[in-house]
Amino acid sequence: MAPISLDALNRIDRAEFVAVLGGVVEHAPWVAEAIARARPFADLAAVRDAIGAALGGADENRRLSVLQAHPDLAGKAARAGALTRDSQAEQASAGLDSLSEQEFAQFTRLNDAYRAKFAIPFIICARRHTKASILRQFEQRLRNDRATEVSAALAEVLRIVALRLDQRIAAPDRLNVHGRLSTHVLDTYHGRPAAGVPIELVELSETGANRVVESMVTNADGRTDRAIIQDRPVPIGEYELRFRLAEYFRKDGVRLADPPFIDVVPIRFAVAEPEGSYHVPLLASPWSYTTYRGS
Amino acid sequence: MAPISLDALNRIDRAEFVAVLGGVVEHAPWVAEAIARARPFADLAAVRDAIGAALGGADENRRLSVLQAHPDLAGKAARAGALTRDSQAEQASAGLDSLSEQEFAQFTRLNDAYRAKFAIPFIICARRHTKASILRQFEQRLRNDRATEVSAALAEVLRIVALRLDQRIAAPDRLNVHGRLSTHVLDTYHGRPAAGVPIELVELSETGANRVVESMVTNADGRTDRAIIQDRPVPIGEYELRFRLAEYFRKDGVRLADPPFIDVVPIRFAVAEPEGSYHVPLLASPWSYTTYRGS
Amino acid sequence: MAPISLDALNRIDRAEFVAVLGGVVEHAPWVAEAIARARPFADLAAVRDAIGAALGGADENRRLSVLQAHPDLAGKAARAGALTRDSQAEQASAGLDSLSEQEFAQFTRLNDAYRAKFAIPFIICARRHTKASILRQFEQRLRNDRATEVSAALAEVLRIVALRLDQRIAAPDRLNVHGRLSTHVLDTYHGRPAAGVPIELVELSETGANRVVESMVTNADGRTDRAIIQDRPVPIGEYELRFRLAEYFRKDGVRLADPPFIDVVPIRFAVAEPEGSYHVPLLASPWSYTTYRGS
Amino acid sequence: MAPISLDALNRIDRAEFVAVLGGVVEHAPWVAEAIARARPFADLAAVRDAIGAALGGADENRRLSVLQAHPDLAGKAARAGALTRDSQAEQASAGLDSLSEQEFAQFTRLNDAYRAKFAIPFIICARRHTKASILRQFEQRLRNDRATEVSAALAEVLRIVALRLDQRIAAPDRLNVHGRLSTHVLDTYHGRPAAGVPIELVELSETGANRVVESMVTNADGRTDRAIIQDRPVPIGEYELRFRLAEYFRKDGVRLADPPFIDVVPIRFAVAEPEGSYHVPLLASPWSYTTYRGS
Repeated sequence: MAPISLDALNRIDRAEFVAVLGGVVEHAPWVAEAIARARPFADLAAVRDAIGAALGGADENRRLSVLQAHPDLAGKAARAGALTRDSQAEQASAGLDSLSEQEFAQFTRLNDAYRAKFAIPFIICARRHTKASILRQFEQRLRNDRATEVSAALAEVLRIVALRLDQRIAAPDRLNVHGRLSTHVLDTYHGRPAAGVPIELVELSETGANRVVESMVTNADGRTDRAIIQDRPVPIGEYELRFRLAEYFRKDGVRLADPPFIDVVPIRFAVAEPEGSYHVPLLASPWSYTTYRGS
Repeated sequence: MAPISLDALNRIDRAEFVAVLGGVVEHAPWVAEAIARARPFADLAAVRDAIGAALGGADENRRLSVLQAHPDLAGKAARAGALTRDSQAEQASAGLDSLSEQEFAQFTRLNDAYRAKFAIPFIICARRHTKASILRQFEQRLRNDRATEVSAALAEVLRIVALRLDQRIAAPDRLNVHGRLSTHVLDTYHGRPAAGVPIELVELSETGANRVVESMVTNADGRTDRAIIQDRPVPIGEYELRFRLAEYFRKDGVRLADPPFIDVVPIRFAVAEPEGSYHVPLLASPWSYTTYRGS
Repeated sequence: MAPISLDALNRIDRAEFVAVLGGVVEHAPWVAEAIARARPFADLAAVRDAIGAALGGADENRRLSVLQAHPDLAGKAARAGALTRDSQAEQASAGLDSLSEQEFAQFTRLNDAYRAKFAIPFIICARRHTKASILRQFEQRLRNDRATEVSAALAEVLRIVALRLDQRIAAPDRLNVHGRLSTHVLDTYHGRPAAGVPIELVELSETGANRVVESMVTNADGRTDRAIIQDRPVPIGEYELRFRLAEYFRKDGVRLADPPFIDVVPIRFAVAEPEGSYHVPLLASPWSYTTYRGS
Repeated sequence: MAPISLDALNRIDRAEFVAVLGGVVEHAPWVAEAIARARPFADLAAVRDAIGAALGGADENRRLSVLQAHPDLAGKAARAGALTRDSQAEQASAGLDSLSEQEFAQFTRLNDAYRAKFAIPFIICARRHTKASILRQFEQRLRNDRATEVSAALAEVLRIVALRLDQRIAAPDRLNVHGRLSTHVLDTYHGRPAAGVPIELVELSETGANRVVESMVTNADGRTDRAIIQDRPVPIGEYELRFRLAEYFRKDGVRLADPPFIDVVPIRFAVAEPEGSYHVPLLASPWSYTTYRGS
């Protein structure tokens, strides 16, 4: 669905407004209804803040109902195809739609333990995470007390809201929900950008299989045409960027050892801030390389 | 068995001499007998050359018998525990004593194809190879013609001889059969050697499981007390050195991101010359690192 | 004088046109007159090509007159303030307006030798050179024969023309007469751009004094707000970029040795192609740094 | 004069002992006389400690006389050739024997101011300093009070003593008075040590002329045959190591730009601890380089 402009959002009638924003808070169209009269909104931040205020100003039961209406992660609803489209896409972004049986069992155990302790489902903004970091959060948050978790869950709901607004509404301001992952390959043998280097971004998993997230090739400037990740959060997690360096130098007629001393260069790094900018360049000759957090 | 000095080797009687060197050429004590009268040897190279001359000067049938007396790699003799001690240790050094069923089947298929084509077993100096590079050699050499392979097999026999001599005899000269793999970790955050960094050397396998070859910790000078590999060939193959960098910086009270931008640094490289010196240093801060082929 | 648009240039009357472009070829307004009737020009390249064709199509005497009408470099006309404004600015860009007595004597000697051998003045596009590279060109070109030098002089005239057109005319196309020199400072101690690093660009001279060309400070992204050199050629020559690194780290509270191991970092490099892009970054901690030709 | 062994020193008669060690404390042979009876000394440290104890245990007048008997730095005695051989060599090591007139005037002014304030000459262990760092120390110490300066002067006397003992006596232990400055050039274009690279060590001066301290060429391992500085302190000061890199690559047939992007690489660094180990390596291709404090 194409995003609607903020102008249009401010002008459409109430029913249409609720149709557009009703799903922004999961299973709680009353929030959209509540803020419809607050229009016109000056910017996207004002929409988000209005939603935050509506949830914050609701009585506690209503707030808890909102939390309780969220689905489990990789739970029965997901298996049964009974998720909202938003939830389904969000869970899929972290790979929760293709768990192994063992992982599914682990999620089920954690979901049950969490519900047993807190009487709400475990809520997390899945687009900001990898499977591994969701599991880590699960373990950590299970140790909290209930008040802390109710707050944490509400904060996650607002992160989910921000990302859903970002997808539905085209506005001049952005909500600072996008991160960026990029690279740049410099050839220190020839003193020029390295063009045509095949690159893979692999999401690492401690338990399950690693997952190739992107495959790209550097352009004439040694960069990828688009950033490797942009216009969305960079999920918290551990990654390897793999550069097929020997292939690049060989194409250029550089004589290499057989097998080449350096063939594929794996740069392993972690993302801690999904809204951050991660520039991970590579300066390389056939016999040496340097990497660093760039800008 | 402690090595015998070259002096002693030159003095002992013929029977003892054959007892010491009889196994240097697999199942061919006649070679030791043949060279016993050539004593005294000026150095270790002279012993090796005498063995080469004896094999080279023998008639073709005898030379072929020597080749045919070699065992298959990971073959029935190995499974039955019927290898000579030398062969057993050599095959084990490349991990051929612990193949998966699938790998065993692959070796059996290749052994059979090789024997069918050349009427000799596939001979390779296993201490100079990893499992992966043996398989690569197998595929390549299967494409040769018979004359080429008889020569190649004889060359490998002489490499095996050189390593067996190196283990049995203590002499002032060495036979240039040793390689070296070493590292050095420099901390560019504090401007000093990085002491106490846990390091693993992992042998990479395209098909099977990776294998941790060594686990060491850097000393006060940022080096390992002994070279990671020394006093033997560095097997041809692909490796990763993995440096637990975040653990090192954390111990030192350096504040890192959570998870740290750089945690374990994998340096992937290949060894092409088993008798070469591979120095693979790491210069690292919590946010950048450099590696290169050093000296 | 503000540049005139190509559109306007195509529309103004002939007298105005000659007023605007008459000085583009030194002391040869006839060239502007000759090309006025060729209007309209589709782009800036067409103007330059028309001038080239007019000079190339002129008879030899006329072409030689054009060369002979050029002033000496740092010659009597320059001392007497009798240069055209263009020539004056061009010679000043290479520092020829502030020579030491010794340098002046050297230029006089070379000018005289050149005129004696070739019967034309030494012509060079000064904006593409430093004093040092002009002297080197002088020595080299003095060894040529006359035909080579007449061609070389004409080629330099056309380079001068291109730069003068670039300054006088605003057009959608550019003549590829601009180079670029830029830098970027990354702090590998904190893992972020180094903001507030004082930088100097120094032009090195083998004989005379070095000359500080630019003094700048890095911005929040570790770059300079404008490229160090842009919108003009980067003069052929040897340079040092000097980064006051200790000052930067000290402001940030990093404890350094006294005196600091690294204080000012000099990066010495040469420019060979004035129309090239030279990106010279610095990755630095208090104890290490890396530089390279970037992009 | 060849050093005497500690054994011999313990055995020679008193007169000879005083002849050997009488000059160790400038113009104070009584110290040698006083410690002669304390023999035998177990090691060199015991000799130094005995001298320290003799000076510390003397009454204040005698201690002051020792300080007063020291010559000015670059003073009249030095100009008149009236220094002891030790003092002369020590002052020469810091270049104080070849000052410009302006520098000489500066030293005279500082000497006079120091004597006027403290009634003793300015004493500093010249072998641990460059001219620049002596001047810096001069300015700083002039701001102290007298008690602090008497202590400081005595500490410098003991540093001078340690170095003079180190030169006169051969003992199994060393007094930790030696520093070390070394380098290593790695060629990241070919993946091997860079042999045959001309290197200069230049001592930088803020005011006077820079001074080439050493000129060396790298050997087959990319190192210098001897450390650039060893077996003596590395004088506190600012230096440049200059590597003639383009010359090296050109000899190897590598095609470079003209002029080459990198020709001479200047690595500027400071020494803060004369007894420290400064390893300053260079990893370089024709288009990039890295340096760091190594080990």
